[in-house]
Amino acid sequence: MTTQDLTATLELISAHGSFGGSQRFYRHRSSTLGLPARFSIFLPRGADAGAPVPALIYLAGLTCNEETFPIKSGAQRFAAEHGLALIAPDTSPRGAGAPGETDNWDLGVGAGFYLDATQPPWNAHYRMESYVVDELVALVTQHFNIDAKRIGVFGHSMGGHGALTLALRHPSVFRSVSAFAPVAAPASCPWGEKAFGAYLGDDRAAWRQHDATALIGELGVRWDGTLLVDQGLDDGFLASQLRIDAFEAACRSVGQPLELRRHAGYDHGYYFISTFIGDHIAHHARALKG
Amino acid sequence: MTTQDLTATLELISAHGSFGGSQRFYRHRSSTLGLPARFSIFLPRGADAGAPVPALIYLAGLTCNEETFPIKSGAQRFAAEHGLALIAPDTSPRGAGAPGETDNWDLGVGAGFYLDATQPPWNAHYRMESYVVDELVALVTQHFNIDAKRIGVFGHSMGGHGALTLALRHPSVFRSVSAFAPVAAPASCPWGEKAFGAYLGDDRAAWRQHDATALIGELGVRWDGTLLVDQGLDDGFLASQLRIDAFEAACRSVGQPLELRRHAGYDHGYYFISTFIGDHIAHHARALKG
Repeated sequence: MTTQDLTATLELISAHGSFGGSQRFYRHRSSTLGLPARFSIFLPRGADAGAPVPALIYLAGLTCNEETFPIKSGAQRFAAEHGLALIAPDTSPRGAGAPGETDNWDLGVGAGFYLDATQPPWNAHYRMESYVVDELVALVTQHFNIDAKRIGVFGHSMGGHGALTLALRHPSVFRSVSAFAPVAAPASCPWGEKAFGAYLGDDRAAWRQHDATALIGELGVRWDGTLLVDQGLDDGFLASQLRIDAFEAACRSVGQPLELRRHAGYDHGYYFISTFIGDHIAHHARALKG
Repeated sequence: MTTQDLTATLELISAHGSFGGSQRFYRHRSSTLGLPARFSIFLPRGADAGAPVPALIYLAGLTCNEETFPIKSGAQRFAAEHGLALIAPDTSPRGAGAPGETDNWDLGVGAGFYLDATQPPWNAHYRMESYVVDELVALVTQHFNIDAKRIGVFGHSMGGHGALTLALRHPSVFRSVSAFAPVAAPASCPWGEKAFGAYLGDDRAAWRQHDATALIGELGVRWDGTLLVDQGLDDGFLASQLRIDAFEAACRSVGQPLELRRHAGYDHGYYFISTFIGDHIAHHARALKG
């Protein structure tokens, strides 16, 4: 696909002044997903001129979409301060028509898990890893004044899993990474077992390629830098689904630098995320602008 | 109603850690509305002990509810910094059963306009002015460690109208006021004409009592302090519904101090509000803590 083709298919849905910059929503035809797709982008003041700006891709959690982060996180204030763009894709294909894709909130629509499904019926459209890493990165660096060499990734819950695994699997694409309450060991929690079983089949070796704890603890993958993770201790999913203790143990066992901050009194939602979003953006800014 | 009665009827729906404090949602039986009602409250760190804290009541716009402000505004960060509580009621009674109350998004449910209706069928339950000024203020000052002598009011659109008119009509209750994109002259705009006609009937003298421009420009009411108003210039409702120019002219004609800030590139939504919310909370903090 050429730049001309991309230009032809990128459609502005809406644009809103925000902290001196612009919060925008776009629709485009995704060749990777084989469907229309949406993303949001915050561009700080002056991002349309001068030197290309760094960017962060934010991956949201189950049931969310490209609006969740710009509406709820309060991130624009800090992106404006640091001169970063913020990009948030949707959490799955929409309209794939896979049987059962809307039957469960933790599988199918709103639950793409940031991987490329290998199993029918999912493998026809559920290819969120390739969509984010290849198509979305190419799209935003071609259409906006964004520096392709200074892109970070972060996310929440299922999207925290996505941020960790996509960074570990694609270190040439992402230069910084952080996560809020990530699904840190999806191959051994109910959400992950359900999704990986459906999308990847029974081969547990394939599962481990998308499990941050296994990538670091078993498969010898390292992140060249510090992983920042925030976790609320009143998070009802902590013990059963998120398994941050297992991730911490894996990092410790191999010497992977991890800044894991546990916060008493915080739950799994965006009141937690918005409280600490400024710290995450500062973490990425140090890596991307240093 | 005694404190004991209130205690019995105040039901915590949820509580979330937020910026070192707590974002909570409550349900109670409103004697004013004759119905169950909901409100949200942010309590900064330490608000349950020590000296009572000042509080701001935020009035939201058409179609919103008590969740809109805490989810979208990013206000908690600044309330935490200044040590203020934030309280947001719903925008109308719910479940009144008035004929047609759900037929239009600008009348009835979600559109209480912060006045007490005098006309049937609305007058049975649509009493948002008395609910906010009397019942809600009493409720939160009795149940939380809030200083009844240091309460400010602000709001957006219909809620900006509410903030201005309730402050002007009840200066003994509110010590500070500000507004985002208020419906500043409702007696002479389509939203206000529709709502006032339904709630207040044909008597235009009654309408003027709920019109900030008329209160200041015709009825001799003054605010002892500066009114802070922010208005986006890309706001699609500016000319037809908000009429801030008329309000500005009324203030100027009588010497009412008004800090009116017009912002190029900003629209009517919460991306606008969140950009300037910190300025508003600082404005109130100066008045309430000075």
